[in-house]
Amino acid sequence: MSLERELSNAIRILSVDAVQNAKSGHPGMPMGMADIAEVLWRNFLKHNPKNPKWDNRDRFILSNGHGSMLLYSLLHLTGYDVSIEEIKKFRQFNSKTPGHPEINETPGVETTTGPLGQGLANAVGMAIAEKTLSAYFNRLHFDIVNHYTWVFAGDGCLMEGISHEVCSLAGTLKLGKLIVFYDSNGISIDGKVSNWFTDDTVMRFKSYNWHVIDKVNGHHSSSIKKSIQEAMSIKDKPSIIICNTIIGFGSPNKSGTSESHGAPLGESEINLTRKNLKWKYLPFEIPQEIYKKWDFVKQGFKLEQEWNKKFSLYQVKYPELAKEYLRRFRKDLPEKWHQKTTDYIIKLQNNPENIASRSASQNTLEKFVKLLPELIGGSADLSPSNLTICSSSSSIAENSSGNYIHYGVREFGMTAIANGISHHGGFIPYTSTFLMFVEYARNAVRMAALMNTKHIFIYTHDSIGLGEDGPTHQPIEQLANLRMTPNIDVWRPCDQVETATAWKFAIEKKQGPTALILSRQNLSQIDRNNEQLNSISRGAYILYESKKTIDIIFISTGSEVYITLLAAKKIMSLGYSVRVISMPSNNVFDRQENEYKEYILPSYVTKRIAIEASIKDFWYKYVGINGLIIGMKTFGKSAPADILFKNFGFTIENIVNKSKNFLQY
Amino acid sequence: MSLERELSNAIRILSVDAVQNAKSGHPGMPMGMADIAEVLWRNFLKHNPKNPKWDNRDRFILSNGHGSMLLYSLLHLTGYDVSIEEIKKFRQFNSKTPGHPEINETPGVETTTGPLGQGLANAVGMAIAEKTLSAYFNRLHFDIVNHYTWVFAGDGCLMEGISHEVCSLAGTLKLGKLIVFYDSNGISIDGKVSNWFTDDTVMRFKSYNWHVIDKVNGHHSSSIKKSIQEAMSIKDKPSIIICNTIIGFGSPNKSGTSESHGAPLGESEINLTRKNLKWKYLPFEIPQEIYKKWDFVKQGFKLEQEWNKKFSLYQVKYPELAKEYLRRFRKDLPEKWHQKTTDYIIKLQNNPENIASRSASQNTLEKFVKLLPELIGGSADLSPSNLTICSSSSSIAENSSGNYIHYGVREFGMTAIANGISHHGGFIPYTSTFLMFVEYARNAVRMAALMNTKHIFIYTHDSIGLGEDGPTHQPIEQLANLRMTPNIDVWRPCDQVETATAWKFAIEKKQGPTALILSRQNLSQIDRNNEQLNSISRGAYILYESKKTIDIIFISTGSEVYITLLAAKKIMSLGYSVRVISMPSNNVFDRQENEYKEYILPSYVTKRIAIEASIKDFWYKYVGINGLIIGMKTFGKSAPADILFKNFGFTIENIVNKSKNFLQY
Repeated sequence: MSLERELSNAIRILSVDAVQNAKSGHPGMPMGMADIAEVLWRNFLKHNPKNPKWDNRDRFILSNGHGSMLLYSLLHLTGYDVSIEEIKKFRQFNSKTPGHPEINETPGVETTTGPLGQGLANAVGMAIAEKTLSAYFNRLHFDIVNHYTWVFAGDGCLMEGISHEVCSLAGTLKLGKLIVFYDSNGISIDGKVSNWFTDDTVMRFKSYNWHVIDKVNGHHSSSIKKSIQEAMSIKDKPSIIICNTIIGFGSPNKSGTSESHGAPLGESEINLTRKNLKWKYLPFEIPQEIYKKWDFVKQGFKLEQEWNKKFSLYQVKYPELAKEYLRRFRKDLPEKWHQKTTDYIIKLQNNPENIASRSASQNTLEKFVKLLPELIGGSADLSPSNLTICSSSSSIAENSSGNYIHYGVREFGMTAIANGISHHGGFIPYTSTFLMFVEYARNAVRMAALMNTKHIFIYTHDSIGLGEDGPTHQPIEQLANLRMTPNIDVWRPCDQVETATAWKFAIEKKQGPTALILSRQNLSQIDRNNEQLNSISRGAYILYESKKTIDIIFISTGSEVYITLLAAKKIMSLGYSVRVISMPSNNVFDRQENEYKEYILPSYVTKRIAIEASIKDFWYKYVGINGLIIGMKTFGKSAPADILFKNFGFTIENIVNKSKNFLQY
Repeated sequence: MSLERELSNAIRILSVDAVQNAKSGHPGMPMGMADIAEVLWRNFLKHNPKNPKWDNRDRFILSNGHGSMLLYSLLHLTGYDVSIEEIKKFRQFNSKTPGHPEINETPGVETTTGPLGQGLANAVGMAIAEKTLSAYFNRLHFDIVNHYTWVFAGDGCLMEGISHEVCSLAGTLKLGKLIVFYDSNGISIDGKVSNWFTDDTVMRFKSYNWHVIDKVNGHHSSSIKKSIQEAMSIKDKPSIIICNTIIGFGSPNKSGTSESHGAPLGESEINLTRKNLKWKYLPFEIPQEIYKKWDFVKQGFKLEQEWNKKFSLYQVKYPELAKEYLRRFRKDLPEKWHQKTTDYIIKLQNNPENIASRSASQNTLEKFVKLLPELIGGSADLSPSNLTICSSSSSIAENSSGNYIHYGVREFGMTAIANGISHHGGFIPYTSTFLMFVEYARNAVRMAALMNTKHIFIYTHDSIGLGEDGPTHQPIEQLANLRMTPNIDVWRPCDQVETATAWKFAIEKKQGPTALILSRQNLSQIDRNNEQLNSISRGAYILYESKKTIDIIFISTGSEVYITLLAAKKIMSLGYSVRVISMPSNNVFDRQENEYKEYILPSYVTKRIAIEASIKDFWYKYVGINGLIIGMKTFGKSAPADILFKNFGFTIENIVNKSKNFLQY
């Protein structure tokens, strides 16, 4: 047996045993792709097992994340802090080896994968980050940023629509250092793919301007090696290496069938597999000579050392650039950030303007993008509507060190790509579309939340207030959905001051995504004293109140705050004592200490009314079963915004009438 | 000027004027595709303006739905019940001419479009329906089902990932009667597409096994005509006709630019356009000779008459088939449906089995599919996990009159395709994936809700109870999101009896989607008396109660009902009076009369506790601000299900402890 096969068999047997031990998991893919992994990881991949966060490492993405044991085996064997004990605890509570690879659980895992196609998209983002950063930071003889992004992907990834979106864009952007291995084994969960997946993948990827290497025997080391060399030689196109593999390779009775995909092989088949692969060792026993061959600690150390040396010289020759590089990779904000942005917000408060919050966001970008070269924006072909371009924006398609991506009509691809850009380091991405079309991108938004990815979502056209485009474009339940997703901070600002504050908050967060929910239509600016101005960042604050004991609390957000304020004042003029809460971010408010929360929404006030042009049911949390909610219960309609607001009850008059009844009841 | 151009100019001018009148809308696409529409609608399209619901009409789908004025112009001009007054009311409240085409608002609109790519997907569904029904119902000389499905699609549709999913499947399924016109105008909202969309679309569609007709001049009638004839001659492949067009054709200063895409041209440019197109008539004035040329009422009547004659003969020759055809297109259920399904549910209650609700669903399918040849199922490559195949299932890829679709790993495509199948008529579709991956399909689910499409969603692996696959696969906020979407009935049954009842309910609904949320793990069957059994279909009912005044109400769903029941009994043994509510469908419960709702959840009982392994915030609606919720606040983890249930508090012990404190507080 060749050395290569023996080494790949270590992956196979570790995977098979770990899955058996866990009584669940996916042995088929690690068995099928082990030979490819062996060639890539031992001959090409630049990484440092003892510093998985080395900036200039190659990125390796397992897009078919169910094959997690392949990755855990590689991390374990090459010297990462993933012990054999952790491999034994595969899929157990709080282990480093969860069912699917998770970025914050395991050293060496670059992104969380499992939801198919998204790893590939993240990888496109990493390759964009590498290309854009290298254009920005590299100088003659100083290729400070210079690495490959490698992807393993399966039939599932390529069937998913997101693969079209991101591979099409990757070809357009000529991402020459992106190399994808397609595990073409002809099997998916329902069986042989010939009844549902008959694409000519060669032709498909050529149509995207990719370099395609076809018919590589995925179990033949030198063919794999040759294909990688070829892919690396192509500088102006991403490459896909189509590897013909056998799922469950090594299992005498289950290889080549969907039976090996997603369940333990079973004791007796494992014994037969051991025999078949001539593997003489006990479960979780790897002989030292095999460990030695896999060990990459020394080489990894050396690779990073070389880079460190180069970077030291770079620091001497380009001190400002080097300082900026380090700042961006450390995720520090520029020195004068705090003062400048605070001043900006005060200035906005003192210079009221009645503009749409999407315009306020664009004004804020105008200010912030100049301060933050790490901001990299983009829109899914709605730039002129989302207002995400400012005077310092420059398209990466035209300027390779630019800071703006025209993603095309690709909401899902955009969001997952930007997750990858964020994980790469060196950038804070913001992406944008209409709030409705968060739905096209929905699982990538959730993945940002799950991974605690710093990523700012700009969602404009946030309610029936968008008017004539009608119910296909009018968000109803989308806001509640975002708010109920753990780890996302959702802001729906009511004027330019809250908008800029939300932006500042999103930038200053150490990690995790933020969604800014912005109006298409103009909003009236609200007066605030200093205390109010400072309280915006607590998510909810008192915008207005009568002096005495409170009879009724009005809670509102975004475009409904101003009419709520006017309605509350009318109610006050009837002799009631009112309080008006602006709650731009319920998520942020929920995290405040109990004293603040009780101060804002005192328990004794049970007469509460929430006003928001969004699904009603969300607001029971703040107003209670007996509270009053003026919200949406149905889909919207196509008509001018003012007609819709009137028809659905978002008028001062209706709020006043409903509140009066409510107070008398 | 050619007659054809004069007729297409009628569309252009109507569109331009209607958009101007509405002060919003999209003139560019109708101006660009008017010549194609003229050729198709006047020479090929089989339809009957006076009966837009004629079963055997050709389906015409405007996938680039923002060009709605193109469709409204066509409907108006050919004789549908869309008057010039309605055209004047374009985008106004309650008109027949909303901003984007809506199926339930306008005669002749086959599906609601606007969210890009989905119209194309709906069309693939219609073509599947046509092909499958024709194989089922047609007999020699009786092509009862025999029509084309035509699609207009733009750059946006083709950039969206869903276009990959559905076009790939359409090629695999050899949908020869699907013909797509691609409006290749090189412009999208951000500008010229060359910086973000450079696919070789010819190669791309060839890779999907489509017939591709390239470089058709979209403003040259005879070229368009020729291309359509060629497409119709290809029987075993879908066709795409790539039409080079000029967006905003006819506008001297805005054609060929994104300026003409999504805003009124403006009075002066409209005047110039009129001059340029030599159009001498006032806004909304169409000369009689042009109306006459467009009028399709007579031809349409004749087409349907011929079909009616054929069908009469078919009724004589194949009375049973004809009866079945009529039943299916009338959406009637078979005669013995009610009795047989009621008996089945009673039998389940009397023969308890502790099985997963996904298995219970499969058992139900085993029974129901035999009764309902109109059920057409499928899964996004998770058939063995979703358990959506039963012994009567037969793949349409292998049996052209089959009733099961292996959709491949294409959740979004699947869902939008099945919406199209449902709209076609003759079928009730059900589709399936893991509950988490509803997110990949999310906007198609919402479109089903918006369109009131009869479509049954089977979502299995419904909570952390799926165990080791971990947080990427464990739904948290998904259930709340579905429940908050208007028009969807969401069921999360707690045992095989509730599962079968939910299925029966979904089938018997006249319209609108239903989501069945099912467990991976086994569930204990609950005892019920007849009253309880009959109350399941009310969405919530009393599963258990002490006799006297109630101290505390427990509300639960699905896999948490059984432990809630046992916990409540423990609380009762401590001297409290308890009530346990099983609430399989809060949406259905919310629609019950107030008396029933008050009977189930009496206002005086403020001590309420909800137990569900899903996002906590949803439940405030039923337990109030001071209620207790045992739910999820974070993402899940990878571990065996029992460990997770214990860790996240879904145990009898924790429910008892929390309830005790709650009662004492």
